[in-house]
Amino acid sequence: MLPHPLDLIARSSFETDSRILLVVLDGVGDLPIDGETPLSAAATPNLDELARESSLGLSTVVAAGITPGSGPGHLSLFGYDSLHYDVGRGVLSALGIGLDLGPNQVAARGNFATVGNDGTITDRRAGRISTALNERLIEGLKEEIRDVDGATVSLYTEADYRFVLVLEGDDFGGSVGETDPGRVGDSPIASVSMSDDPADSRTADVLNRFAAQAAEVLVGLQSEIPDDPVNTVLLRGIGKKPDLPSMKDVFRLRPGSVASYPMYRGVSRLVGMDCLPMSLEGTGERTADKMEAYRNHAKEHDFIYFHVKKTDSCGEDGDFEGKKTQIDLFDEIVPELLAWEPDVVLITGDHSTPVALKAHSWHPLPVMIWSRYGRPDGRRFTEEACRGGSLGTLRHLDLMPLAMANALKLRKYGA
Amino acid sequence: MLPHPLDLIARSSFETDSRILLVVLDGVGDLPIDGETPLSAAATPNLDELARESSLGLSTVVAAGITPGSGPGHLSLFGYDSLHYDVGRGVLSALGIGLDLGPNQVAARGNFATVGNDGTITDRRAGRISTALNERLIEGLKEEIRDVDGATVSLYTEADYRFVLVLEGDDFGGSVGETDPGRVGDSPIASVSMSDDPADSRTADVLNRFAAQAAEVLVGLQSEIPDDPVNTVLLRGIGKKPDLPSMKDVFRLRPGSVASYPMYRGVSRLVGMDCLPMSLEGTGERTADKMEAYRNHAKEHDFIYFHVKKTDSCGEDGDFEGKKTQIDLFDEIVPELLAWEPDVVLITGDHSTPVALKAHSWHPLPVMIWSRYGRPDGRRFTEEACRGGSLGTLRHLDLMPLAMANALKLRKYGA
Repeated sequence: MLPHPLDLIARSSFETDSRILLVVLDGVGDLPIDGETPLSAAATPNLDELARESSLGLSTVVAAGITPGSGPGHLSLFGYDSLHYDVGRGVLSALGIGLDLGPNQVAARGNFATVGNDGTITDRRAGRISTALNERLIEGLKEEIRDVDGATVSLYTEADYRFVLVLEGDDFGGSVGETDPGRVGDSPIASVSMSDDPADSRTADVLNRFAAQAAEVLVGLQSEIPDDPVNTVLLRGIGKKPDLPSMKDVFRLRPGSVASYPMYRGVSRLVGMDCLPMSLEGTGERTADKMEAYRNHAKEHDFIYFHVKKTDSCGEDGDFEGKKTQIDLFDEIVPELLAWEPDVVLITGDHSTPVALKAHSWHPLPVMIWSRYGRPDGRRFTEEACRGGSLGTLRHLDLMPLAMANALKLRKYGA
Repeated sequence: MLPHPLDLIARSSFETDSRILLVVLDGVGDLPIDGETPLSAAATPNLDELARESSLGLSTVVAAGITPGSGPGHLSLFGYDSLHYDVGRGVLSALGIGLDLGPNQVAARGNFATVGNDGTITDRRAGRISTALNERLIEGLKEEIRDVDGATVSLYTEADYRFVLVLEGDDFGGSVGETDPGRVGDSPIASVSMSDDPADSRTADVLNRFAAQAAEVLVGLQSEIPDDPVNTVLLRGIGKKPDLPSMKDVFRLRPGSVASYPMYRGVSRLVGMDCLPMSLEGTGERTADKMEAYRNHAKEHDFIYFHVKKTDSCGEDGDFEGKKTQIDLFDEIVPELLAWEPDVVLITGDHSTPVALKAHSWHPLPVMIWSRYGRPDGRRFTEEACRGGSLGTLRHLDLMPLAMANALKLRKYGA
């Protein structure tokens, strides 16, 4: 039995020629500063025209007061209840650095950390070391540790004090506890199996042995590297890639994603989207590359997820002008996005990232749905205008059902 | 344990003298055409006066994006979660043609259909045959088939290609699969038991034997009836009448229904309402008959469900003027409805039926609740005015608890 709303979608959806465009302006929701938000301050003639013919609303991503990470934020948007489908930090970090994960791989997020002479943790992030030092430590660890008890261990720098560990081998389970006690003053703890399955015990054993070996290697490296505070690792959010039902099966869509950052490509693949072919060169927003992929390949799909990252990055930097400018820039590509002639256009974000908070937040997001069969609210797309729009207050899990309904892709429920 | 919100109502409700009137304008919700909907275009002085003193809101019937049939729409309105109480198409069709169903009866919806020489379905609706041909085929089948393996089989014309089968006998279960594969190109399938209960296997056997005999009879009839495309039957939505807790017990109400169409009389009986005495002669809206029943018998109840059908029919026909006129006509009876002196008046629909779609839709419905204890919004009763009304956006399951509360029929929850 699928969780709501996938249950209803699975029993109601059918294939049609109609097309849905989902635009995610990452972290777009904001709070007013001197009466304006980046959305209200931006110059968006194209978006305004579309918004006037759209239904508006304010949408809560996961639950009231809950600040979602990008993983839960996107899963909710795609119609997957993130309270049901728990995708661990390890898996999200692995997807985020562009790894694929198979069924015989277990991913963990690692922290480089510092313990004192008595073995208790003095800094869970080792003074937030640089990515350069992280890379040197990973190099050192990889030279000394490759296999642990029949499992291959692969290590990757994520950024700053964060790394990713991927354990690979036959008969290793993903249901084990963290080695991070979560606070300073405690000692690192042993990973334990969370089940009766011996495969989970094997994973816990490997991770505990790895942690001990890694600490030894890191202490050795301290004598080579000046001012290196790292003498241990903490492993968190350990797990396998969950088996999510594919959007192809549940929604009867041919879904494609257009995103330049690996994390978002990863999350879209997790629900069965195809990443539209794009050069793998380059980093950052890469709007020109995304638009080229969209122009050439959107036509092979009837659902497109189009991701815009920089709105979030500017929010995280507390950069109001920058966030406004990113919205201005998005407005310029709106006509080209509409050239695909979608039947439904759904625009929102995966969470709010208010400039005032410099971080993700819990605030409901402005949402607009354009379709032939909507109730047009005749307003701009801003936080204030979305309040009291005809979509009312809703949840992100409601958005895909609404998009599917507006595309006339859902059958009647009951006689 | 009753599903929400019946659980809360059952523990909080008590009997009082106060009266609740629930008016269902079937399919009333619509989309604007040139800026107007049937509700906004209609001339409704009486409704306007009541609406100005009412609280307004927009309500989703089942879930975002889900288009409800009349069965789930009405159950939700009555406070019964239609995702929990699954009433099969067969039962709804049987109620719709005015049958009552007992615990030893199983109902199925039947399609007259066409298979090709290779046994695969070429038309699941046999070219949507006329009701006249349907009646002739039912006559022919009834002559040849009466009992199958100890079960009495009764057949009824519904309309066009649709009929109703009722199987009756001791120890027959209702949990069996359909014989309709749901698409052209496949062969009809055998009904199978959905449980380990031998009573369900017996039902599946009877239905499979009936389907085989019916196909033989229908092929025989083809030689007698010119241009008769029907050579098989498909059975769908098979089940027994579910055992719903009565509104009398849960709500502590003496509920009565005023509806002229059998389907709505049937759904109201399903939740324990008494149909107000009305002549069984005549078809259609029969407003005069309904008003006579209301005038004479509403006083025997403290809850009345009053159904207006034609708003939906005009929506299905894509007839904007007609739908507007039906609302005008409804407005004329409002004073007489209020003459009963209800303490609470709740007006909404069971689903939207937009003229532009000529079909049921997923769009939230305008709702108004008048009572002494409301927050009057001072507006007309239209889709646009209900957007942002003081009821906000709500769900149909919220409406009966709100009506009960406004009638002061619910105790405080907790100390």
